[in-house]
Amino acid sequence: MTQSTGSGESLEESPTITGVGMTVFTKKDERPLLELLATAADRALDDADVSPTSLDSLHVGNAAAEAFNRRSGLANALTSELGITNVTARRIENTSASGASAFLDAFDAIRSGRSRVALVVGGEKMSSADTATSTEIISRITHDAEYEQGVTLPSFAGLAADRYFRLYDADREDLAHVAVKNHDNASQNPYAHFDKQVTVEEILESPVVADPLRLYDCCPTGDGAAAVLLTTKNNGVEVAACESAVGTHAVADRPDPLEIESVREAGNSAYASADVTPADIDVACIHDAFSILEWLEVEELGLAERGKAWQLTVDGTTDRDGSLPINPGGGLKARGHPLGGTGISQIVELVWQLRGDAPENRAVSDINCGLAVNVAGFGNNSVCTVLKGEEA
Amino acid sequence: MTQSTGSGESLEESPTITGVGMTVFTKKDERPLLELLATAADRALDDADVSPTSLDSLHVGNAAAEAFNRRSGLANALTSELGITNVTARRIENTSASGASAFLDAFDAIRSGRSRVALVVGGEKMSSADTATSTEIISRITHDAEYEQGVTLPSFAGLAADRYFRLYDADREDLAHVAVKNHDNASQNPYAHFDKQVTVEEILESPVVADPLRLYDCCPTGDGAAAVLLTTKNNGVEVAACESAVGTHAVADRPDPLEIESVREAGNSAYASADVTPADIDVACIHDAFSILEWLEVEELGLAERGKAWQLTVDGTTDRDGSLPINPGGGLKARGHPLGGTGISQIVELVWQLRGDAPENRAVSDINCGLAVNVAGFGNNSVCTVLKGEEA
Repeated sequence: MTQSTGSGESLEESPTITGVGMTVFTKKDERPLLELLATAADRALDDADVSPTSLDSLHVGNAAAEAFNRRSGLANALTSELGITNVTARRIENTSASGASAFLDAFDAIRSGRSRVALVVGGEKMSSADTATSTEIISRITHDAEYEQGVTLPSFAGLAADRYFRLYDADREDLAHVAVKNHDNASQNPYAHFDKQVTVEEILESPVVADPLRLYDCCPTGDGAAAVLLTTKNNGVEVAACESAVGTHAVADRPDPLEIESVREAGNSAYASADVTPADIDVACIHDAFSILEWLEVEELGLAERGKAWQLTVDGTTDRDGSLPINPGGGLKARGHPLGGTGISQIVELVWQLRGDAPENRAVSDINCGLAVNVAGFGNNSVCTVLKGEEA
Repeated sequence: MTQSTGSGESLEESPTITGVGMTVFTKKDERPLLELLATAADRALDDADVSPTSLDSLHVGNAAAEAFNRRSGLANALTSELGITNVTARRIENTSASGASAFLDAFDAIRSGRSRVALVVGGEKMSSADTATSTEIISRITHDAEYEQGVTLPSFAGLAADRYFRLYDADREDLAHVAVKNHDNASQNPYAHFDKQVTVEEILESPVVADPLRLYDCCPTGDGAAAVLLTTKNNGVEVAACESAVGTHAVADRPDPLEIESVREAGNSAYASADVTPADIDVACIHDAFSILEWLEVEELGLAERGKAWQLTVDGTTDRDGSLPINPGGGLKARGHPLGGTGISQIVELVWQLRGDAPENRAVSDINCGLAVNVAGFGNNSVCTVLKGEEA
């Protein structure tokens, strides 16, 4: 095992995470985007006990600051906020997976020998944008042909849920348990967008968004930021793998609209790189932008057989005290989904859990291996990360 | 020397460029942004004789598609245009250095072992945006405090030119020779935005933008895309180094407004990584968004002493047939500046020159080592690349 000694020499061992931090995800944070990012950054640096001047590189995950905030050059402005020069800095955009893509970028910067101390900051401030702008930016994530026909992300999710119910033994009430669970987890997470529990009845009675999906099946977008510090040290949470894959862009071109090829491919690559199997995963943060996606992704990741993920929700396997807790921080559904912040918040949650730092009422016990999946668009690009605790 | 064998194993030798291509840079290209990117990509793939399905990764450099084109998820949409899945794809943003930052990203992806065949595509379609939007996005590249006081990029450049004239022996007419040279080079480049030569008199008589700078001292923004294919093969142009650095964001905080720390630091890092000195550079593509920047950057890069770069312009050293040709493709000044496309177009030009593929009337002879510098904002983040020809 050798440590990197600077530019050009590459790393023989896995990068580790030695610091994490985030802001409270919320509908509207009065602070400017740059301050949100700097706040999360400061928290991760404090957690790692690292000075900003020690950084070699800064990787900012953000989906649409130019459109949402009329702000450009976010990475450079953040270096100024942090008071640093002479680093490599850039922003990474991959729609709703911008956060994890920035993390992957930092992971590669460490492995290539460019960086020994890399800060990844993901965040979004969506409350600044008018509804027309944010709706258009989010809708344009889909394939042009589908966008032009008016198919939106919620409608894809509604069609998927309807098909799932037709093919498998799950029903509308079973699906509500995903949101019940994730809201319950978020109610124990002081950084979550939603702090209240919801009942099956409330979910079923909430307004229809894209039948059979109700409002409470859909995640809230909003404002927030999260950050992690990646280094070459041995004393943190190990990043055993970070892999990504692109899948078919147009949903209509997929062999089955319930399949998310990019999640499957990224997951399989990550398992192979980390030398683990799905059975080794103790806890997972899944991209549940819509409740039905939690099931589809759990199946693509091999954590349940196809058509069986719903059972893990209904029988409590994916609860905090179950054998495979899913989204212990509340998921996108209830922790919230400030686009560029989401992928990093998943990693923050896993690190807290793997280090045993999650508050007692949210802590998942006996875990060594965590998985996060962050998804762009309706599954056209996914990033899958496998983390291992210090004892793993 | 070993070849990469896949994820996790890193590369012992420098990545090489085996294909390049671009669209004609112009004020307004009727094709959508995605088609511009796909066209440049196809040309680079054809030049390399590589099928899109051979790609491991796609790196898109673009500054502001959400704001300029109301388009999000550009990297994923481009994979769809190219008909590929199962690659790693993301967009890199670093304002006017988005192109070179995407190139650096691909360089690291190769060196980290993630990718063996990486396509970098940079482009922008600015003609779609209304003037208020494009002006605001470009203006917001500066530090918040300076933006709020109304200081724009042209005004920074004007102040720098004025100071240069006061400190050194150059004058307004000497500076005009930068634009004369770069227009002359562009007039021989079928991909350039401007195809006509200009005279010193025309420049001096053109409208004042930010005194002492005239309209013909400022580059045109517009539409265009460029692409390069990076691989691990031995038979291309070697990427001897790609380094970047952040400098002071607020110009007011710099010890001297004529200093561009980020260019100096990125340049020094690149020389060290490539094991060359400024004396080894045979040809350079410099980020001449304003004519005065060509001098300032040439000096920061050690290609001339401080206060002496103007002499190299006036005495013909930087002409195509001089001993150190600068911007043989026309530079930003005359090839044009579609933000995300610029950094890649510099590399395309160097590859053409190093391979001897530039048309006879634009070819620079007896060269083995080329340098490109792409700058974000008014110098707050720079990327410097050193390329070596096959015979180097």
